[in-house]
Amino acid sequence: MTNPTAAMLVIGDEILSGRTRDSNAHHLAGRLDAYGIDLREVRVVADDRDAIVDAVRALSAAYDQLFTSGGIGPTHDDITAESVAAAFDAPISVREDARAILAAHYDARGIELNAARLRMARIPDGASLIENAVSAAPGFSLGNAHVMAGVPKIFEAMLDALLPSLAHGAARQVRQVEIVRGEGDIAEALSSVAETYPSIAIGSYPTSRDGQPLVRILLRGDEVGMLDEAEKKVRDLLDEPAS
Amino acid sequence: MTNPTAAMLVIGDEILSGRTRDSNAHHLAGRLDAYGIDLREVRVVADDRDAIVDAVRALSAAYDQLFTSGGIGPTHDDITAESVAAAFDAPISVREDARAILAAHYDARGIELNAARLRMARIPDGASLIENAVSAAPGFSLGNAHVMAGVPKIFEAMLDALLPSLAHGAARQVRQVEIVRGEGDIAEALSSVAETYPSIAIGSYPTSRDGQPLVRILLRGDEVGMLDEAEKKVRDLLDEPAS
Repeated sequence: MTNPTAAMLVIGDEILSGRTRDSNAHHLAGRLDAYGIDLREVRVVADDRDAIVDAVRALSAAYDQLFTSGGIGPTHDDITAESVAAAFDAPISVREDARAILAAHYDARGIELNAARLRMARIPDGASLIENAVSAAPGFSLGNAHVMAGVPKIFEAMLDALLPSLAHGAARQVRQVEIVRGEGDIAEALSSVAETYPSIAIGSYPTSRDGQPLVRILLRGDEVGMLDEAEKKVRDLLDEPAS
Repeated sequence: MTNPTAAMLVIGDEILSGRTRDSNAHHLAGRLDAYGIDLREVRVVADDRDAIVDAVRALSAAYDQLFTSGGIGPTHDDITAESVAAAFDAPISVREDARAILAAHYDARGIELNAARLRMARIPDGASLIENAVSAAPGFSLGNAHVMAGVPKIFEAMLDALLPSLAHGAARQVRQVEIVRGEGDIAEALSSVAETYPSIAIGSYPTSRDGQPLVRILLRGDEVGMLDEAEKKVRDLLDEPAS
């Protein structure tokens, strides 16, 4: 069984200048892994129309789903919506359904729906809205691209609203084995297990605990029986009792 | 004055599955910003040869420098060195200078330099080594690609060793203005400043403090005089006294 594939595009100068550390890619990665969509690539680009258009075209063509974060607020540097529209050759303008959502939100708070805020109601023709339970201004899905906010709380709320509508496979099964040894000592044994079980992705991640070298070995795959076998093989080869 | 441009390629299944949160991209972004190299793009791909080769080719062609992290350890899933070599059509094999570094390191610790550890001495023809002050096994520069480890402590040490050898421009000057208002209230004024000073990148980042909406405005550019002017204009327009 093959899971749908996905990419993420993070948009924002502030990430590339080091002022802000992105957290949306890591959040998305964990959610997709649990949901059964394979995240294959992440890109971060600046608030630059050409860079966004090129990345959206490349990633939406290469993967089943594309998730974007950032650049859909009311200010001049928020150019994601029009850039995604351009990438799909879709016209974009203030749309009545989005305008009504903003009007209701701001009216209830006595805040003026001015021209800047109305920018957030510009939605490409043919897109469907993604609910924003935090601050009303919606994201949208156009083709296989899902355009969401950069503020983590809003990104996460939009993802909650979006995800149940997307096709998915099974969550990958994962086994973890920790070995208190240097990575160079176990590499050969690990390699032989990887050759025996080509359908299982075996990752080896060196770290340390209490000053001792420690390797975290992750086995990931779809078939529980085969994972059990491979995990046993790793433990046997490395004389590591099952935890 | 134009700064050199750069991209980063983060390599690792563990990032895309959400098991590990990358920190190297954020570290690199801050270091390059202070050093006067413009980071324009970051990509994250899996431990997959074709994905690495394609990304290395695209990014090394599009930018002045390419920094990679991850996939240069001793285990079967460490395929970055051979993939980068393939991207540049360079032969790769165990190189004597790298082997000698590993031999000295492991000999001093009474650890065997076995076949797996020797994998870390495979360096493409024509590459120069990047020193690893933490655990000896070197990174390398091939063409404009700089191949470094994924373990953050080692990545950071390699970057320390590498950076002084690279051409750079001036660190971007940055001004920050915080406004305790909604982003939609200040968008229009901000937009007029952005139009007046096209050479200054003005970013607007909504957040909150003590339950109040707060916008962090960043002005970035090369010319101090023009930045001073633009900052004053923002403060005047928004009635925000200089801090």
